Amino acid sequence: MTVGIIGLGLIGGSLAKAFCREEGNTVLGWDTDSTIVEFAQIAQAIHGPLTDERLGELDLLLLATYPEAVVEHMTRLAPLLSKHTMVIDCAGTKEKVCAGVFPLAERYGFRFLGGHPMAGTHFSGFKYSRADLFDGAPMVIVPPRFDDIRLLDEAKKLLAPVGFGRVSITTAQEHDKRIAFTSQMAHVISNAYIKSPTARNHDGFSAGSYKDLTRVAWLNPAMWAELFLENRENLLFELDTLIRSLEQYREAIQEDDFAALCQLLEEGRRIKEEVDGT
Amino acid sequence: MTVGIIGLGLIGGSLAKAFCREEGNTVLGWDTDSTIVEFAQIAQAIHGPLTDERLGELDLLLLATYPEAVVEHMTRLAPLLSKHTMVIDCAGTKEKVCAGVFPLAERYGFRFLGGHPMAGTHFSGFKYSRADLFDGAPMVIVPPRFDDIRLLDEAKKLLAPVGFGRVSITTAQEHDKRIAFTSQMAHVISNAYIKSPTARNHDGFSAGSYKDLTRVAWLNPAMWAELFLENRENLLFELDTLIRSLEQYREAIQEDDFAALCQLLEEGRRIKEEVDGT
Repeated sequence: MTVGIIGLGLIGGSLAKAFCREEGNTVLGWDTDSTIVEFAQIAQAIHGPLTDERLGELDLLLLATYPEAVVEHMTRLAPLLSKHTMVIDCAGTKEKVCAGVFPLAERYGFRFLGGHPMAGTHFSGFKYSRADLFDGAPMVIVPPRFDDIRLLDEAKKLLAPVGFGRVSITTAQEHDKRIAFTSQMAHVISNAYIKSPTARNHDGFSAGSYKDLTRVAWLNPAMWAELFLENRENLLFELDTLIRSLEQYREAIQEDDFAALCQLLEEGRRIKEEVDGT
Repeated sequence: MTVGIIGLGLIGGSLAKAFCREEGNTVLGWDTDSTIVEFAQIAQAIHGPLTDERLGELDLLLLATYPEAVVEHMTRLAPLLSKHTMVIDCAGTKEKVCAGVFPLAERYGFRFLGGHPMAGTHFSGFKYSRADLFDGAPMVIVPPRFDDIRLLDEAKKLLAPVGFGRVSITTAQEHDKRIAFTSQMAHVISNAYIKSPTARNHDGFSAGSYKDLTRVAWLNPAMWAELFLENRENLLFELDTLIRSLEQYREAIQEDDFAALCQLLEEGRRIKEEVDGT
C-alpha cells in the first residue's frame, strides 16, 4: 500500500520506519522542515516526499503533528484527497481535531478517524524515531460513528504493519478525559515535582521511585502546553482532584494522625490493586 | 565474618542472602515472626537463629526494621553487645534512630552507624528478598562523627559482600530532608494520584508515564505512615512546595495562558536537565 505521513518527528518518523519494514509498502513523507524530509529519505525511513501531486495515490494518510496543525493541514488537503484514502491523525488530544476534521471528511467524502498511538519517549524529533516504537503499544481510535464495522476493520488492516497491541475504540470526549489523567497529569506532576529546591541534592539518595517520577519532567514545553490547553477542563478537574487528595495527606501528617494516614495509604493501595492488580 | 540480622523482611532477607553468597560468612537471623526465621534457615538465607547467647560472636549487626523498633531493639541489646561489634540500621528515616542509638553506642562502647540502603521493591516480606537486591545500589551512611576514617573504612569492608554501588556519608538531618523528596514524596504522590475517579477507566489509555507514576501506589501503609510521621517537617515542606507548584500550572491552564504554561514547563525541563542531564 501507499502511506503518506505528515510530520516526521518522533511519532511520524517511527510510523514511517514501521511501514518500511514491509517490502510492498511505499511511504511518502512531509515535514515543515524540508531537511528532515531529505534526511528521512537518506535514512530510508521514507521512499520520497509527499507532494500534492501524489496525494491521490495514498491508501492511508497519517498526520503526526500538534492538534491545531492537524486541522490546518486537513482544511487545505481535504479537496485534494482521493475518496479511497483513509486519514488518521495521531495528536494527543481528540475533541478539537475530530470536531474540525469530521465535517471535512463528510463534505469531501474521504474517511477520517481520530487516532492516538500510546507510546513515545521523553525525547522528540526524527532522530529518536524507531521502527519498533509502537510494537505492542495500545492504539486509541475515535471513529465518526460506532456502527461502521467495515471502516474499523479496514483501519486495523491498514495499521497492521505498525504492530500496535490492543486497539481501543472510544469517543473524542472520553479519550480526552482519560488522557488528561493517564498522560497529561503524569507530565504536569513530574515537571512540577522536580522544582523542589531539594531536587538539586538528590544524588546518592534516589532509588527507583525518584527516577520513575522524574522521567518525563524533561518534556517538549510548546507541545505539551498546546495539548494541556486543548484539554483544559479535563486537566483542571484532574489537577483539582490531585491537589485535594494531597491536602488530605498533608492534613494527616500535620496532625500527626497515624490512623488517618494509614487509612489514606491503604485506600490508595486498594485502588491501585483494583485498577491494575498487584 | 559473623553477621546478625534483625528483621527478615524484604531488606533483611536480601541482606542475609547477599552475605550468604560468600562461603566464609556466618549469618544469624531474628524476626518477630519465628516461622520466618525457620523459613529463612530452610531457604539457606541464614545459618541459624540470632539468640542473645550468640550476640557476642557478631562482627556486624544489621537492623532491618521500622525506625521505632530499631531504637527499642538497641535499648535492650546494647548491654549485651561485644565492643568489637559494628551495628548499622537500615530504617528509612535517620534522625530519631540516630538520636536514640548514638548515646547507647557511646555508653556501652560499641560502634553504631545509621544506614539507608537505597533499594527496594513495592513488595515487602521475606519471600520477595533476593541476594542481588542491593547490587550497585546507593548506600547512605550516617556516622556519629565525620573525622573517623577508620570507622567508615571498616564499615565499607564489612558491607562489601552486599554489593552496594556508591556509599554516601551524610548527617541524619540532611538524609531525612533529601529522602522526604526523593522517596517519601514519590510514594505520597503515587498513592494520591491513583485516587482520581478517572483511574478506573485508564485501561488502553496508558503509556509508560502512567505506569511509572503509579508503580509505588501499592505500598505498605503502616510502614510508610511511620516513616512519614518520623519525617514530618521535611515531608510537609515538600508537600507544600509541590502543591504550590501544581497551583501555578493550574492557574496558567485556567487562564488559558500559553506563554505562562510554556514557561513553567520550560523551567521544569531545565531543572531536570541540570539535575540529571537529559
